[in-house]
Amino acid sequence: MAQPPSALAAGSVGTVETRYLDLPKPIRLDCGRELPAVRVAYETYGILSPRRDNVILVCHALSGDAHAAGFAAAPPAESTRDGFGAEDRDGTAGKGLGWWDGMIGPGKAFDTDRFFVVSTNLLGGCGGTTGPSSIDPATGRPYGADFPVITVADMVRTERAFLDELGIERLAAVAGGSLGGMQAFQWAVMFPDQVDAVVAIASTHALHPQGVAWNAIARDAIMRDPAWQGGHYYGTGRAPDAGMGVARMVGHITYLSAPALNDKFGRRLQFADDIRYTITEPEYEVESYLRHQADSFVKRFDANTYLYTSRALTYFDLARQHGGGSLARALEDLSARTLLIAFSSDWLYPPSASREIEEALRALGKSVELQVIDAPYGHDCFLLEEARQTPIIREFLSEHGLSD
Amino acid sequence: MAQPPSALAAGSVGTVETRYLDLPKPIRLDCGRELPAVRVAYETYGILSPRRDNVILVCHALSGDAHAAGFAAAPPAESTRDGFGAEDRDGTAGKGLGWWDGMIGPGKAFDTDRFFVVSTNLLGGCGGTTGPSSIDPATGRPYGADFPVITVADMVRTERAFLDELGIERLAAVAGGSLGGMQAFQWAVMFPDQVDAVVAIASTHALHPQGVAWNAIARDAIMRDPAWQGGHYYGTGRAPDAGMGVARMVGHITYLSAPALNDKFGRRLQFADDIRYTITEPEYEVESYLRHQADSFVKRFDANTYLYTSRALTYFDLARQHGGGSLARALEDLSARTLLIAFSSDWLYPPSASREIEEALRALGKSVELQVIDAPYGHDCFLLEEARQTPIIREFLSEHGLSD
Repeated sequence: MAQPPSALAAGSVGTVETRYLDLPKPIRLDCGRELPAVRVAYETYGILSPRRDNVILVCHALSGDAHAAGFAAAPPAESTRDGFGAEDRDGTAGKGLGWWDGMIGPGKAFDTDRFFVVSTNLLGGCGGTTGPSSIDPATGRPYGADFPVITVADMVRTERAFLDELGIERLAAVAGGSLGGMQAFQWAVMFPDQVDAVVAIASTHALHPQGVAWNAIARDAIMRDPAWQGGHYYGTGRAPDAGMGVARMVGHITYLSAPALNDKFGRRLQFADDIRYTITEPEYEVESYLRHQADSFVKRFDANTYLYTSRALTYFDLARQHGGGSLARALEDLSARTLLIAFSSDWLYPPSASREIEEALRALGKSVELQVIDAPYGHDCFLLEEARQTPIIREFLSEHGLSD
Repeated sequence: MAQPPSALAAGSVGTVETRYLDLPKPIRLDCGRELPAVRVAYETYGILSPRRDNVILVCHALSGDAHAAGFAAAPPAESTRDGFGAEDRDGTAGKGLGWWDGMIGPGKAFDTDRFFVVSTNLLGGCGGTTGPSSIDPATGRPYGADFPVITVADMVRTERAFLDELGIERLAAVAGGSLGGMQAFQWAVMFPDQVDAVVAIASTHALHPQGVAWNAIARDAIMRDPAWQGGHYYGTGRAPDAGMGVARMVGHITYLSAPALNDKFGRRLQFADDIRYTITEPEYEVESYLRHQADSFVKRFDANTYLYTSRALTYFDLARQHGGGSLARALEDLSARTLLIAFSSDWLYPPSASREIEEALRALGKSVELQVIDAPYGHDCFLLEEARQTPIIREFLSEHGLSD
């Protein structure tokens, strides 16, 4: 295999089409229900090695989808919204760039000259994988709020079943930021013999209570919108866009840091040099920016998927679910090498949580590396600080012995 | 005058009735409009000295009212809601205790054995002072969203006009926390010859951009509720309770610190030892607590007052409004001695803002004292950390030369 080019010469995976795969068997869920006829939306980048030992699974965060890298050939077929695209926080949606395009490609952090990178839309999603907006085969109508409550473990079971269909048994690495990192930990705990390495960025073993609160507020904002209609809004011509907008605004501020907002907007006024004495219209640039974020998000994302995914990431609790309350016990069977990256200004997934995981793994004698990057952009750093994550991840993955 | 008793023997001002006073003249507002027939709800504690030189004006924060101390004789007459009472963050509402009862009374921080303490409901309020829920004399119907947009300066003009009616010219001190502290600064800047001392607690000269954002989200949550009806919901049988609840939940989390939430709730589940797999119901104690906070707040507070007051505190910007962008210039005519108290864990009104004021005043050669109290409860400290504020405030006020 050719040596990867330098980071400076890093390139694009090109135009990519999201594909769909129907799982042959139902997924048995934590809640006790079974989900039949699960479809998974996915993309792959790079070439699968003959020994199938170069697979990296990339898991996305709350508002992501399968389109992690390259240029989108077309919007996902099953999207409930027109114009559904990539993460738009950094303004890439219009260009159809994948949400982690800076990290996946030839010569990039997840180097497609070396690895076969697989990205799926998570269970419950609205980017082509079965979720609340999908048709319930039992009724012929969209599930809506009858969709079963899902967990991060259910997402991972679905990813496991999906990779079975691709004939992939082992993962050279499973990687993700935020909720994506939770999936990576879940993989390593549920399938310890099948995961060689974990790359968990801006993530945690359990969301802290303030994060639980923010997520509860965001979900309440959606469910209190009368247009939510108990979760059965599909086909009614009304959707809880107002509540979703509020949810997104809350989320957005928690993804940024106070100093970043200060640098970006300060207290700059929207118009001219003085205030206009209005309650209803934005006066400050940051107010206008928030409304724009809300408006663009509701055009591309399904409110029920937001509810289910937010609930799943709130439930996630490695110690409670796998260690009887002990993080060390939850991690004791893990065999993957672990790379943790956290960001100094991330107050939603603070470095302290990564440090707790590092300490637990180190006490167990496991291979673990924690890098705390000093950067000002809050939780969003995992999407923005690509240049500084790249050498850390490349170095970590270079220790993986590929059979080339 | 008798020596004040020790803090240990501090007592209550007893049962207090909120009174009402109609101003004889209209209030001219920053927005250019005039507000006729302004009524002010107020309470007083202690005895006005013959020379009228022992008056402390106490200004309340976003969700407060005139009932600052003692036991309420009755709910305010003009409240748009039944059960409107004191700030309920610390659970005092049921007892009818004033929102700052721990700070105002015989032997307390604002010692009613020595000072005549006056507390008014602010302009735009819903606790008896004229606000959006009051009748517009021009139409005979409640103002609703036709109420003029008000500023902190307008609140202070109203307080000035109200004190004129009481025959009070000078203030020994003006004091308040949060928005109340903004009013105190505004007093000292607008009426420099009439204010001897400022006590500004957990306050700022201008809300930082993240605070601007939280306030914008809270207002949007209210205005996006269809029951808001463009602000004209009075008498319709519907009020934007759903949106107000979300606004309150957002506000509530910004008033607390992440460590305080951790200590108070952790990730404790609501029922039994395991999750119930529900999207709509609370699973974690913090989720249930938030809903309770939302429900109790909407019963006692008017949504339009929330909008107008939130807008006013967002506009507040001493440097922009009084110094051509310079905080030093805004403060250069100030003659009051200033006591600033900030709390280490307050991330909504962080100590850094108080430090900026301190530095500006010190550079101008003014008398200023900053005390940063190391306490874990976030912005709510100004309501909770009474014991540690008391000696600081008593000491500061003891330097005031009363003519007794």
